[in-house]
Amino acid sequence: MAASWEAAVSDVRAAREASLAKVEPRLQGLPEGLPRNSTGLAKVVLSPRELEITENYTITQLLAALRERKLSVEEVTRAYLRRAALAQAATNCLTGLLWDEAIERARYLDSLPEPKGQLFGLPISTKEHHGMVGDNVTSSASYACWAGKQHNSNLLYDTLWDEGCVFYARTTQPQTIMHLETESNLYGLTVNPFNRDLTPGGSSGGEAAMLGMRASILGVGGDIGGSVRCPCSHVGVYGFKPTLKRISLLGQRGHMAGKEAILPTAGPMALDREALDLFMKVAISAKPWRIDPSLSMQEWTPYHFDRPLKIAVQWWDGVVRPHPPMLRAMKEVSDACKKAGMKIVEWDCEPLNHRKGWEIITSLYWPDGGKEVMGLLNSTGEPILPLTKFIIEEQPSVKDLSQAELWQRCVERDQYREAYARAWNKTAEEDGQEVDVILCPASFGAATPHRQSRYWGYTANWNLLDYPGAVFPVTVVDPSKDPVDTSYIPKTEEDKFVHDMYSPDKYVDAPVSLQLIGRRHHDEKVLAALAEIERAMGR
Amino acid sequence: MAASWEAAVSDVRAAREASLAKVEPRLQGLPEGLPRNSTGLAKVVLSPRELEITENYTITQLLAALRERKLSVEEVTRAYLRRAALAQAATNCLTGLLWDEAIERARYLDSLPEPKGQLFGLPISTKEHHGMVGDNVTSSASYACWAGKQHNSNLLYDTLWDEGCVFYARTTQPQTIMHLETESNLYGLTVNPFNRDLTPGGSSGGEAAMLGMRASILGVGGDIGGSVRCPCSHVGVYGFKPTLKRISLLGQRGHMAGKEAILPTAGPMALDREALDLFMKVAISAKPWRIDPSLSMQEWTPYHFDRPLKIAVQWWDGVVRPHPPMLRAMKEVSDACKKAGMKIVEWDCEPLNHRKGWEIITSLYWPDGGKEVMGLLNSTGEPILPLTKFIIEEQPSVKDLSQAELWQRCVERDQYREAYARAWNKTAEEDGQEVDVILCPASFGAATPHRQSRYWGYTANWNLLDYPGAVFPVTVVDPSKDPVDTSYIPKTEEDKFVHDMYSPDKYVDAPVSLQLIGRRHHDEKVLAALAEIERAMGR
Repeated sequence: MAASWEAAVSDVRAAREASLAKVEPRLQGLPEGLPRNSTGLAKVVLSPRELEITENYTITQLLAALRERKLSVEEVTRAYLRRAALAQAATNCLTGLLWDEAIERARYLDSLPEPKGQLFGLPISTKEHHGMVGDNVTSSASYACWAGKQHNSNLLYDTLWDEGCVFYARTTQPQTIMHLETESNLYGLTVNPFNRDLTPGGSSGGEAAMLGMRASILGVGGDIGGSVRCPCSHVGVYGFKPTLKRISLLGQRGHMAGKEAILPTAGPMALDREALDLFMKVAISAKPWRIDPSLSMQEWTPYHFDRPLKIAVQWWDGVVRPHPPMLRAMKEVSDACKKAGMKIVEWDCEPLNHRKGWEIITSLYWPDGGKEVMGLLNSTGEPILPLTKFIIEEQPSVKDLSQAELWQRCVERDQYREAYARAWNKTAEEDGQEVDVILCPASFGAATPHRQSRYWGYTANWNLLDYPGAVFPVTVVDPSKDPVDTSYIPKTEEDKFVHDMYSPDKYVDAPVSLQLIGRRHHDEKVLAALAEIERAMGR
Repeated sequence: MAASWEAAVSDVRAAREASLAKVEPRLQGLPEGLPRNSTGLAKVVLSPRELEITENYTITQLLAALRERKLSVEEVTRAYLRRAALAQAATNCLTGLLWDEAIERARYLDSLPEPKGQLFGLPISTKEHHGMVGDNVTSSASYACWAGKQHNSNLLYDTLWDEGCVFYARTTQPQTIMHLETESNLYGLTVNPFNRDLTPGGSSGGEAAMLGMRASILGVGGDIGGSVRCPCSHVGVYGFKPTLKRISLLGQRGHMAGKEAILPTAGPMALDREALDLFMKVAISAKPWRIDPSLSMQEWTPYHFDRPLKIAVQWWDGVVRPHPPMLRAMKEVSDACKKAGMKIVEWDCEPLNHRKGWEIITSLYWPDGGKEVMGLLNSTGEPILPLTKFIIEEQPSVKDLSQAELWQRCVERDQYREAYARAWNKTAEEDGQEVDVILCPASFGAATPHRQSRYWGYTANWNLLDYPGAVFPVTVVDPSKDPVDTSYIPKTEEDKFVHDMYSPDKYVDAPVSLQLIGRRHHDEKVLAALAEIERAMGR
């Protein structure tokens, strides 16, 4: 542990600088002042070959080219390493670049007589607190007091590694890993590649910024309240939060280890929809339950629809009205689905009381009232960031629970889940066809201006229910189509806060994404439904 | 709530007497002083027809006769009702007989033009705290303060009911439902039908006494530390504790509702092995996860071996040496398996440290240090029974945990589970064939004299691991074959306590059973292995 939190900051930043100093050739051509939208910088800084490698392949095509050895692993790795360095320069998304390690790994893979593994040669970027394959790996989980703390691999990454991937970059996460943005004392503020005045979301915001910059084709994030889905939605890429216990957490670093009332899950974040399926298939085909017995013993079994989907549209969550571009995206997609012959019904969630859901989940995020986490922060005196205060101190339900109080919250959680299950069952009553998925906003709007992500309801509700959820890009904010709805009268304080946040000029170039939710364990169905819906959208 | 615990006792006993007063014809021929072994009483008290119905059918045969209407539901029900009243007279195993309700139900089923349901007409006895189908149902869960407390049905019983069963008797459980015996202030002491000086085990000991008396063919118990397996083993019948989250707990009455670090599961207790499969199939085919989303979404998929079993034999648990008849049973069965061509290896569990496992699970049984439970008992001043003190106050690991301490115990639990999983994986190293099941004692011996069940390790270890386990009858204590092992020098205080308990004369007629354990989620495999092993035993 460093002598002070400031010393920890210096240490980790120096280490990051050292890792970036390896980049060769150095990045050249970066403008003095960075533009608001960074996504055009690659064309200035990277070589045509690097642009080709990082832009002209879907994940399936890239894997095929690697397997057929039309591309060497090393040239792919180098292109992604350089693009990652650019992403860091533009968005501050990395905790470190794994230059030497990645090139060594690439050369090893190139040296094999035959390509092997389902991910042969694929570059994968990873969230810092998950740890890493390799000796002398450290991770801080964004706590100054853990800077430089020894960490090793985890079960999930071992699997990806065994399947031939290349880890090449580790990405930022916010303080406590519990903001829907990405800022920490150790690494500073990560910004959105499409508009640096906006957040890339969080907590897997470093991954999102990498994907938005096309500096990653597949990343790994974690989600306990939206931390995969929110950042993916804010940069217009694909993300998937599986049902708990399908992907192992074994070996990840986190606070409150052993807490179980509400759990996170790792999930894929990717440029292509098929990467979500691939990630799940690879992670599960390793039968991780043979080592981590907490997991479901459940193979990955792709689902196929044999009749048109029945989709329930949740226009809003009964608490906070989404911004106009989000409502437009909802309308565009549901219209397209209807046109394609799918059944569209409304999901009336008001009787289910998402507000109560939020009260339950926030209490269960911090059953000790935040004591452990605040202790970690206070141990070095590092400043408590506003969004940390928001999610701990400003939530009325957060308190240090007695065991009996904890049980009571778990009972409430289970009752909430049961009520939702019964409501879902009821959708089959009229026509004998149960709703397949719920289509809903991925967030109340596009990426927010920094430090404004103070409403988690659109994602966290599905963590409370442990329902799998995918996000997918739909549109971008368009001032001509998305004016402020001046007629809307907010219902509550939160609603007003969110309503007042919106004006189109703040959201230039901001992607807008939607979310698809399935029942617990219906992971494969959600991804199959996403394919159907994108087909209906003409993709 | 009654005015005092004594009043509660009077109330529930009066209600029980009233329910037994309905029996018609009244039981006649019971001897003045009850014999030590009650299993011969049926021949004295019941009619030849009643004996035929309750003794000459396996569950499969009984269901067939009911379905084909060779037997009416009413006559079967009446026979079991009368035999249950006899079991109560002999062993004190009931909290109430459902005379009117069962006959009404039977007549309804007989009135149907076609038999329907997988359990059409089958009498099922049930543990009191599970609740019951019907209005005005109460349950106390053996707490004086809850005597007469309104209770309704539960998801599992709804399913059994929908499949056409007849509930006809509710059975005793011990104070706190956390003894491996069955005694409470409300209902007194339940005794073993084979030897009234011995316990029928617990906590589902009322069910066990019913089965030992053949007054039930299929009962439902619950198991968090052995409460299905221990009582079944003590009366020489079949019992099965499934992996958690396959059978729903929704609607059962228990203390510490919402606690989740260690959970109970309901499980079948039965005269026939095939009843275990049947129960699981019926319970799961209803897709209970559609209402109770905590469950695994996993169909019941019978397993078939396509090669000889590989069995690991756990002769002892490294803490307490089993009694001579148990070791003989182990040897007889493992020899039979070897002779049948199965691979037999030894399960060396000492490095896995079952003693540490016990420390973890006892802490997680009572994460509040027993506060809630003691509060329930103290609210009426009912006496705290010695085995309640044993499992709460006398366990050094039991304390009121802070949230952080709870998490630490959960981490230890998960590490224990991981170590076990890795050890199991290792069994494939030598010959590429992983061990299918562990064969081990169901308890350190046969049923103990009353109030001596102070070692749970042989069952509770598998609750900690959440491994499915079946028990099955093997032999009975035989003084000529099972002398005291005077050469054995106990290793610890517990070991000495258990060793000193044994002398063959205390255990006249006591059944001895073994236990078969599978990996988590391998429920179907355990039952398939049990069939193979019984075949090897010549059954």
